[in-house]
Amino acid sequence: MGSDVKGIAILGSTGSVGRQTLEVVRSFPQHFSVVGLAGWTNLALLREQVEEFKPTKIFYRDMGDEATSSGTTKTTTATMEEMVRHPQVDMVVVATTGPAGLLPTLAAMRAGKEVALASKEVIVMAGPLIAQEVARGAILLPVDSEPSAIWQCLVGEDPDIARLIITASGGPFRTRPVEDLATVTPEEALQHPTWHMGKKITVDSATLMNKAFEVIEARWLFGVAWDKIEVVLHPQSIVHSLVEFQDGSVKAQMALPDMRLPLQYALFYPRRVQNQWLARLDMNKIGSLSFEPFGKDRYPCFSIALEAAQAGGTYPAALCAADDVAVSLFLDGKLAFPGIPRLVKRIVDEHQPGSATSLDDVMGAEEWARRRSLELANA
Amino acid sequence: MGSDVKGIAILGSTGSVGRQTLEVVRSFPQHFSVVGLAGWTNLALLREQVEEFKPTKIFYRDMGDEATSSGTTKTTTATMEEMVRHPQVDMVVVATTGPAGLLPTLAAMRAGKEVALASKEVIVMAGPLIAQEVARGAILLPVDSEPSAIWQCLVGEDPDIARLIITASGGPFRTRPVEDLATVTPEEALQHPTWHMGKKITVDSATLMNKAFEVIEARWLFGVAWDKIEVVLHPQSIVHSLVEFQDGSVKAQMALPDMRLPLQYALFYPRRVQNQWLARLDMNKIGSLSFEPFGKDRYPCFSIALEAAQAGGTYPAALCAADDVAVSLFLDGKLAFPGIPRLVKRIVDEHQPGSATSLDDVMGAEEWARRRSLELANA
Repeated sequence: MGSDVKGIAILGSTGSVGRQTLEVVRSFPQHFSVVGLAGWTNLALLREQVEEFKPTKIFYRDMGDEATSSGTTKTTTATMEEMVRHPQVDMVVVATTGPAGLLPTLAAMRAGKEVALASKEVIVMAGPLIAQEVARGAILLPVDSEPSAIWQCLVGEDPDIARLIITASGGPFRTRPVEDLATVTPEEALQHPTWHMGKKITVDSATLMNKAFEVIEARWLFGVAWDKIEVVLHPQSIVHSLVEFQDGSVKAQMALPDMRLPLQYALFYPRRVQNQWLARLDMNKIGSLSFEPFGKDRYPCFSIALEAAQAGGTYPAALCAADDVAVSLFLDGKLAFPGIPRLVKRIVDEHQPGSATSLDDVMGAEEWARRRSLELANA
Repeated sequence: MGSDVKGIAILGSTGSVGRQTLEVVRSFPQHFSVVGLAGWTNLALLREQVEEFKPTKIFYRDMGDEATSSGTTKTTTATMEEMVRHPQVDMVVVATTGPAGLLPTLAAMRAGKEVALASKEVIVMAGPLIAQEVARGAILLPVDSEPSAIWQCLVGEDPDIARLIITASGGPFRTRPVEDLATVTPEEALQHPTWHMGKKITVDSATLMNKAFEVIEARWLFGVAWDKIEVVLHPQSIVHSLVEFQDGSVKAQMALPDMRLPLQYALFYPRRVQNQWLARLDMNKIGSLSFEPFGKDRYPCFSIALEAAQAGGTYPAALCAADDVAVSLFLDGKLAFPGIPRLVKRIVDEHQPGSATSLDDVMGAEEWARRRSLELANA
């Protein structure tokens, strides 16, 4: 592998972020080599990706004999942890859904690999553990548009900032009467006004759970105190976040909503590279950018999540698991939309917290909350 | 003088930017020492400033015996160039009106002083001469809100950018019917919707001559080609300018309109320091930020100026002088508002250009254009 070629493993390659990562890689074949691909639920697409990118390692949940019958001669791995440790891997893109990315993220950081993190559940569940690895020298690059915006605004600046301001589109129900939220269908919740994303994160965007996750992620990624992080509604999703510095000057990062830009920024960091596939923002055609406070009544998940995160310990792990189960149940038609915050709150209230100083602590809380969420939902 | 105390000379200390510079200095007496103050038309205020800040050197146009009769024992200087070369001066704030700042700016740069430049006419008239000094190692810090915004957005980034986007409020006549501009009074032209500034720059903002000057300034300060600089109307004056990088990511610098912020940023650069007197931007209360293309018919000065600047040589010096005279005549009620672009265009059309490789070339063109403008106006 040439010194200019970065070896990449993509965890969650068949999901929305994984596919967009491969689009960026496809634009720059001279810069990247796909060493590993890990899929979860879409074997047909994973096979296509393996055919095109010819990774050295592939992982598919419950792969078993499927791997060989797929006709490839590639070596499958038993775990994503094994894949990320492969010597040809320079960077691991963690684009898994829910808590699945936690173990391989820690494994990659401990093996000295750069991690481009799109799965914010990983850092929500185990913020202190991840921050500890960063303090030991691990390189963690945020990939989501909001933390990437903050990261870009901080380039060259003193990290002792006055305030982070994270923007939120408000999702599809920003203007729907609160009393009508009980009748929201999965189809409606999946109609995000500005972003096309996976199902879990789209529902999390409708409840603002996703925004709470971003606040928590920012707290750990940028080492900023809770009271210095604000959220403002910005329905156009053009300003991806802002940083206020000590002198009151504010920097904002802007772009058309397209995940490939923060992905490319992380893949090439610290270089910025032209990509003809990325549409440019035209300020002369942009019209108005609006900003407004958000109603806490409309988005109860936001406060529930931040209280859990500020309580610390194993609360955030329980929170993540409960939300993961609640969103799945909602998508399966087994839970009403307002049932998501109700179930999550009940789990957080019931949770017997412990310290989260090890992966076992975190995974123990996650498993308890997952089991208990299903129990409550089936009761 | 302690090593942490910066010695400052302020040229144009009684003008709007000069007074605001002293406000910043007043907030941080432990960081700055006022070594020199130069005034032009307001002797009473200059005396007050001398009393409060006790500079080592003062300059007042036509001072003569006035200096001693002012009761101070300070030493007056015969020229601003002499003042800026004083060994206790570390930084020179050039906040003069029109072309008066050119000689002392070059003198300060050549004497190894940091220059914080608010007077964009200086760089418009003699861009290549100023750029030459910067190439030789002189430190030039922009102070106006738009170039400061660009400068802030470039911190830590590769200067090979895709595009600069300079915002313009559009001035007080943005929505006035073009055919009614003939009846604009000086009082109306001085009612700027978002900024409180000196008279010359306020009229230049109403004609967008000021915005053309900022484009020209950006071209020289940031070494960007003409076709990579755009202007967009932004009536709220919250986004002070934007930079588009090679990957299409855009950074914007934002703040409430207050010149003290870019002044403080230049004075403390590269540090950002809290200042309780600077109001903070509250994104939750900001409402909408709008952007729109500007009509070239409404603002003929813009195109006249850019054509002159792109033609190069001594054209920009003639342009500046003609605009200086035209605005004075307008303010004195001797020229109608649409007469400003007409007079400036006539001077640019008549001008016999030469190369502008020396200060003499520049000043020669400036003097010719000033004399000829007055001739034409009095004809």
